[in-house]
Amino acid sequence: MSGIEKQTVSIATTERAQQIIARCRELALCTEVKGETTRTFLAPSMHRVHALVGGWMQAAGMQVRVDAAGNLRGLLPAADPYAPRLLIGSHLDTVVNAGAFDGPLGVVLGVALVEEMVEQAHTNSPAGKGMPFAIEVIGFSEEEGVRFAKPFLGSLALVGELDSATLACTDRSGVSVADAIRHFGLNPDELPAAVIDNSAFGYLEFHIEQGPVLESKGIALGVVDAIAGQTRMEFTFTGQANHAGTTPMGPLRHDALAAAAEWIVEVERYAAATPGLVATVGKVEVPSAAGNVIPGACVATIDIRHAQDSVRHDAAHHFLAAADSTSAKRGVALSTTGLDQAAVPMDPALTALLAGAAARATGQAPRLMTSGAGHDAMVVARRVPAAILFLRTPGGLSHDPDETVLPADVEAALATGVEFLRSLRDDRAMLTRIAARTSQRKREDIHA
Amino acid sequence: MSGIEKQTVSIATTERAQQIIARCRELALCTEVKGETTRTFLAPSMHRVHALVGGWMQAAGMQVRVDAAGNLRGLLPAADPYAPRLLIGSHLDTVVNAGAFDGPLGVVLGVALVEEMVEQAHTNSPAGKGMPFAIEVIGFSEEEGVRFAKPFLGSLALVGELDSATLACTDRSGVSVADAIRHFGLNPDELPAAVIDNSAFGYLEFHIEQGPVLESKGIALGVVDAIAGQTRMEFTFTGQANHAGTTPMGPLRHDALAAAAEWIVEVERYAAATPGLVATVGKVEVPSAAGNVIPGACVATIDIRHAQDSVRHDAAHHFLAAADSTSAKRGVALSTTGLDQAAVPMDPALTALLAGAAARATGQAPRLMTSGAGHDAMVVARRVPAAILFLRTPGGLSHDPDETVLPADVEAALATGVEFLRSLRDDRAMLTRIAARTSQRKREDIHA
Repeated sequence: MSGIEKQTVSIATTERAQQIIARCRELALCTEVKGETTRTFLAPSMHRVHALVGGWMQAAGMQVRVDAAGNLRGLLPAADPYAPRLLIGSHLDTVVNAGAFDGPLGVVLGVALVEEMVEQAHTNSPAGKGMPFAIEVIGFSEEEGVRFAKPFLGSLALVGELDSATLACTDRSGVSVADAIRHFGLNPDELPAAVIDNSAFGYLEFHIEQGPVLESKGIALGVVDAIAGQTRMEFTFTGQANHAGTTPMGPLRHDALAAAAEWIVEVERYAAATPGLVATVGKVEVPSAAGNVIPGACVATIDIRHAQDSVRHDAAHHFLAAADSTSAKRGVALSTTGLDQAAVPMDPALTALLAGAAARATGQAPRLMTSGAGHDAMVVARRVPAAILFLRTPGGLSHDPDETVLPADVEAALATGVEFLRSLRDDRAMLTRIAARTSQRKREDIHA
Repeated sequence: MSGIEKQTVSIATTERAQQIIARCRELALCTEVKGETTRTFLAPSMHRVHALVGGWMQAAGMQVRVDAAGNLRGLLPAADPYAPRLLIGSHLDTVVNAGAFDGPLGVVLGVALVEEMVEQAHTNSPAGKGMPFAIEVIGFSEEEGVRFAKPFLGSLALVGELDSATLACTDRSGVSVADAIRHFGLNPDELPAAVIDNSAFGYLEFHIEQGPVLESKGIALGVVDAIAGQTRMEFTFTGQANHAGTTPMGPLRHDALAAAAEWIVEVERYAAATPGLVATVGKVEVPSAAGNVIPGACVATIDIRHAQDSVRHDAAHHFLAAADSTSAKRGVALSTTGLDQAAVPMDPALTALLAGAAARATGQAPRLMTSGAGHDAMVVARRVPAAILFLRTPGGLSHDPDETVLPADVEAALATGVEFLRSLRDDRAMLTRIAARTSQRKREDIHA
C-alpha cells in the first residue's frame, strides 16, 4: 500500500465512520415500539429499513433485491459474470428495546465497504485492478429469535435450511412464519431462490463484541476463531415446602433453594477454574415463594459455553453430578431438561487473512477470540468459509439502548475491510485456493 | 387422681377427641372460597363459625358474646363473681386454602375442656370441688394477617392494643379494619369493652405444632418455653446484567445471583451450626431474568428465629457481614431492609404446671420446645402469664388442606387440659401465687 493510498483511505474512512454511525442511528428509529428500538422479523418497520439500506446500496451501484425470507441483498457484480462471490452480512432485526448497533452495524459497514471500494476504483484504480469477485451485502431479516422464539431465520433461508416445521411456527398472535412472509408482500414458495449457489466462496461478518474483553484489553478489534458451543439446561430441584420457623435445620428440611444455591456456587467455581469456559445461572425461581416458607421447589437455568465441545460437555456433566450430589444429601429430587449446540469454528484461512488485514490496517494485532454469542456466521459457515470481525463494545453493554461503538473503532473496522478486500483482490492465488477449498467442501457436503 | 376417675376421663376423652376433630372439620366448611378453607378477618363465613361454636359453648353452660373486635367469647363463671379468670384461646380465622386445625382446634379443645369439666362436676364432684376460677374460652377473630397484612388483630384487641393506625389499615378492596368491624354488625367504638381486666390470671393455648419435631421424636405433646424472636429482612444484591456468553468469568462479571447463592450457602451453614437457630431464605427473585443474561440484580428474603434474642441478633449481624463480604469481592452492591420482633418467653410457673399435667395425663413427658411460629399467646403474654400446649403435626404439614392431627394426640391434649385445670383447682396455694404474681406484674406494667 503506497503512502498516498493510505492517506486517501484515512480521510475517507474517518468521514465514512461518522456516516456509518449516523446511518445505524437512523435505522434505530425504524421501530414497532415508539420511543425505543424494537424490530422483529418482517415487522412493518422493516419496510423502511429496506428502503433506507436499499437506497444506499443502489447509490453505491449495487443491484438490490429482497429475497423470499425478507433478506435484503445488494450485489456488486464483478466484470466476469462467473466470478466467485464474497458475502458480507449481518442482521437487520433487533431484540426488544435494543441498541443501534447489534446487527445493523454489520450491514451498514458492508455497504460502506462497497462504497469505499467503488470510490477507490474510480479514483485510484490502475488498469487491471477491477475486482476479480462479486460482493453481495446481505441484511438478514431475522437473527435474534424474538418473534418466533427461533433465531437465525434469515441465514437459515440463505443456506436452504428454513424448513416447513419452522415456517409453521407461530408468534404470540398465532401468525406463522409463512404468513408473516406473505403479510410482508413476499412469497414463501420462492424460498429456494434465496439459497446461495456455489459461487459464494467466503462470508465476512462485522459485529460488535457485546462483551467486555476487547475494552478490558485496550484493543479495538477482535477476530473470531470459533463461536462457542452452547448447552442450555433447566434444573428443577424439588424439596418440601415447610414452615420456616417450626422446621429445624438439618435432615428435617428439604430446602430446594439451598440445594440450588450450593450448586450455583459450584458452577461458578468450576467455570472460573476452567480456561475459556463461561457458565451462567441466569434465571432462578421459587414457585409459591414466601418469606416464612422453606422453598419447596426451585427452577434454575444454566447456560454453558466453550469453543471446544469436549470442555463444554465435561462441564455439563460436572454440573449435573454436582446438582445430583447436593440434592441427594438433602432429600431433594432433581430433574433436568436441556439443549445442546455444537461449537462452530470459523474458517482458518479466511480468519488468518482477516487478522492480517486488521494488523496492517490498524497497526495493532487484533485479539483472536471465541465468540460467546451466536451470530449469523454460525449458520452460514455450514456452507461457506466464514470469518467475523468484532468491534470493541464500550462497557460491554449490548441489548440495551445505551449500546454504542467508538468512531475510531468503526474506522479501524472499515480500514480492515478495505485491506481484507485488497488482499483477496491482489492475491489471486489465495482467492483461487479459498474458492477451490469451498467447492471441495461443497462436494463433501453432498456426499456426507 | 383415682383409678375410677382416670377411667372416666379416658372413655370421655376418646369420644370427645373424635368429636373435636369432627367439629374442626365442620368449621372448615365455613369458607369464603368454595372447595377450600379460606376464612379471613370477619368474612361472612365467620357468622356461621360463631353460630356453631357459640352453640357448643351455650350448650356447655357458657355465657356467649362477640366482642367489638369480632372475638367469640364464652364464659363459664365460677360461683364467686370475683374469682380469678383463666383464659383459653386460639384463632378462628385461617390462611388461604388452609387445613382444619391451625387455630380452630385450640378453640374447639377449649370448649371440649369446659364440657369435660362441667360433666365431671356433675358426675364426680364431691362437695367443695366447685371451680375456684372462671374459664373464658376465646375464639380470636384474626391471627393470620391475611386480609390486612397485619396479624393478631383479635388478641391485640384483647390486650387493648388495637390502635387507630391499625383500625385505619385497608384490605385490597380499600375496606378498613374499622369498616370491616362495622360491616360485620359490630361497633369499633366498643373496643374498650373487649379488653381483659385484672381478673385474668393465666392464658392457655392449644395449637398444632406446625412442624416436624414432635413427630420425629415420637412424642404426642410439646410444651412451649418461648416463642422465638424473629428477624425478617430483604437483601438486594445489585450487580450488572450482561451477556452470559460474551462476558468471561472473573472480575468482569458482577453476578448478583452468584453473590446471593454464596450467601445462602453461608446462611444455611451458620444456622445448622448454631443450636436452636433457624434461618431460611424463602424468596429469591432475579428481576428481568433470562437464561442467557448474567443476573444484574437479585432480591432475597431471610427469616431468622431463635428463643434468645442475642443469638438471633448475632446471626443477623453475621449474615449481613457475609453478604457484605461476598458482594464486595464481586463488585456487587448490597442494600437491606428489615423488621425485628423480640422473643416472647412463656410464663415459667404456668408452663411447669402444664408440663406436669401432660406427663401425668399421658404417662410421657412432653417435649419442652421453642415455638418457631408466632401465636396469639405472644400478644396475650404482654398482659397475662401464658402457656402453650403443642400437638404433634403429622408430616409437619400445616397451612395446607392435608393438615391433620392424630385422634390419640387430641385425646392426650384434652386429658392434659383436664389435669391442668384440676391442678389449678386443687392447689389453691398455687392459684393464689400465680394470681398474685399476675397482679404484681400488672402493677409493674402501670409503673413501667
